[in-house]
Amino acid sequence: MIYFDHNATTPIDGRVVEAMLPYLTTFYGNPSSLYRAGRIVRSAIDTAREQIAALVDVQAAQIVFTSGGTEANNLALNTLCSTSLMAVSAIEHPSVFASINKNKRNNDNVISVDENGLISPFTIEELIKEPKLPVLVSMMLANNENGVIQPIKKMAGLLREKKIIVHTDAIQAIGKIPVSFSQLSVNLMTLSSHKIYGPKGCGALVIDKQIDIEPLLVGGGQESDRRSGTENVAGIVGFGKAAELALLELEQRSAHYLLLRNKLEQELQSIPGLLIFSEQVERLPNTVQFGIQGIDGEMLLMQLDQKNIAVSSGSACASGGGKASSVLIAMGVDEQLAKSAIRVSFGMANTEIEINEFSKLLKSFVMKGE
Amino acid sequence: MIYFDHNATTPIDGRVVEAMLPYLTTFYGNPSSLYRAGRIVRSAIDTAREQIAALVDVQAAQIVFTSGGTEANNLALNTLCSTSLMAVSAIEHPSVFASINKNKRNNDNVISVDENGLISPFTIEELIKEPKLPVLVSMMLANNENGVIQPIKKMAGLLREKKIIVHTDAIQAIGKIPVSFSQLSVNLMTLSSHKIYGPKGCGALVIDKQIDIEPLLVGGGQESDRRSGTENVAGIVGFGKAAELALLELEQRSAHYLLLRNKLEQELQSIPGLLIFSEQVERLPNTVQFGIQGIDGEMLLMQLDQKNIAVSSGSACASGGGKASSVLIAMGVDEQLAKSAIRVSFGMANTEIEINEFSKLLKSFVMKGE
Repeated sequence: MIYFDHNATTPIDGRVVEAMLPYLTTFYGNPSSLYRAGRIVRSAIDTAREQIAALVDVQAAQIVFTSGGTEANNLALNTLCSTSLMAVSAIEHPSVFASINKNKRNNDNVISVDENGLISPFTIEELIKEPKLPVLVSMMLANNENGVIQPIKKMAGLLREKKIIVHTDAIQAIGKIPVSFSQLSVNLMTLSSHKIYGPKGCGALVIDKQIDIEPLLVGGGQESDRRSGTENVAGIVGFGKAAELALLELEQRSAHYLLLRNKLEQELQSIPGLLIFSEQVERLPNTVQFGIQGIDGEMLLMQLDQKNIAVSSGSACASGGGKASSVLIAMGVDEQLAKSAIRVSFGMANTEIEINEFSKLLKSFVMKGE
Repeated sequence: MIYFDHNATTPIDGRVVEAMLPYLTTFYGNPSSLYRAGRIVRSAIDTAREQIAALVDVQAAQIVFTSGGTEANNLALNTLCSTSLMAVSAIEHPSVFASINKNKRNNDNVISVDENGLISPFTIEELIKEPKLPVLVSMMLANNENGVIQPIKKMAGLLREKKIIVHTDAIQAIGKIPVSFSQLSVNLMTLSSHKIYGPKGCGALVIDKQIDIEPLLVGGGQESDRRSGTENVAGIVGFGKAAELALLELEQRSAHYLLLRNKLEQELQSIPGLLIFSEQVERLPNTVQFGIQGIDGEMLLMQLDQKNIAVSSGSACASGGGKASSVLIAMGVDEQLAKSAIRVSFGMANTEIEINEFSKLLKSFVMKGE
């Protein structure tokens, strides 16, 4: 199989599985237990917390483990501001949008993006001139579909001058570009394990020391009372190891991704009617999203699947709905073109040979009808 | 190590780890993805859903996977009734109590228990005579501390005549006694993986077909829109396998536990000032909770830990607080005696030899001071 859908999920790194295994076999204590078997796993969680903190340049105490990115996004938005005005960008993940809808605040500000998928700092300047300011603004660091990297630092600076809390979903950014919580000047940041070669079922919310969040899951008071529930120990240990490796190998991975992306984009140039979305702006090195005039994206995806190539039409969560990507629609892309979208997202194990094979097949499918 | 704290968490069964491994290595797709790698893991989730459904005698569609028992309890109580009156028994897990406190409903009815830790059907008869009926009642099937099994079926019958929704936390019951959702006549039931030799980080809420729940985690719309977030595939597969084994081996496990419990209780009889809580009522076969006049439970726990024996003073979640068990207090146990409580909970691998060793040590610690 040629797996080109790493923004949907990544395989677990063999070194991560190895780190997890003792916590699936030998060390099974409950981290809340006082005896030795409990203290051993508690200490493993502490190590993982340090590893994840190092990846985004914060202190370990700022990390709250969750069951994944969705829970972390929900935690950031749901509890802090359940009664307050919030603003979110038009290209956020469903777990950000749904948090707003759930709280039935249809009058929330949606921050628009330009034709490249970028939020303009000018839009933020306008936003902070309005009479009623939002309490929190949520803006993705890098988009899961087109890979566009937002100028979060500049925008967060403007917002924080007005005491607006800034949340960024950095799930797609970590492990691909350098991410520093403090340099970005944000207050809340969402992370996920299974997009950086860690296991599914584990994520984290990074929290500014000056912010008190209200927990979303309540009970035993784990995670310093910010997220109750017996910790997913093996998952957390795996997430920690994955974070350690992501930091260690960042340059090397990023260079590899960029090589593949350049190679693919060169190949794509010869396909008539093909448009690479957000081509002109800063994007994740591993992500290419393109549309092809007159092509049905999901149909193409299935044709590729027949040949054992895994790509996606956009977000995995929205798969199969037959709807055009809301990210592309927000960028003003024509609905027909948006429905033709294919996202390719590379991983560590991908090769140039795979790109050749993919390009050849893509060309044969697309140009057949001509 | 002698591990006598299976109500806090269990080791993962080797057969469960084996079932999980392919989903930590080979099959890493996102279950929401349309291509083959996605469909394979989707199908593994479906199988696990069937296995868990079989354990509690429901249809697969009634199972909603969560990140654990805490989330399932929160989901049951938080979303269905965030604005409604609820009643919960005095011996519930913190994740049930905290759901009520979070919603700031201090006027909720707390259903009392008798000196044996039993809710009396008479109390329920009184409850349903009150002018303002609760919308939901939550009562544990079997208590995590003293192991007391509640007469849920009888009480649920009374409540449902009044159209009151009945939730039961069955986390400690499954795998130890037969549990049938429909025979118990409940509407909602909480399950957890890591108490039945499955991995941590996975649980489920079983839902009556006639009930619409509002999701707690929102976003991509997984779990038929009842719980968003990329599924913890390996965890779910492990939970499924653990459920399959729990059903298959129920009689054998239960008989083994009872043998050990009888053996231990016999040994305990010779310790002066020792009281077995709830001794006269129906309890889980694997659980013994006792108090010893004049002894500090946490101190004893640490002395046992020094000798590599793991027991607990009560719920793992409440460990280290130095507070008396709220379950025992609700039963009217004197605070000093409650603080002396030790809970022993057996698992499949425990032996009579371990009980002999534990009893000998316990006697030497307790009788030393005399």
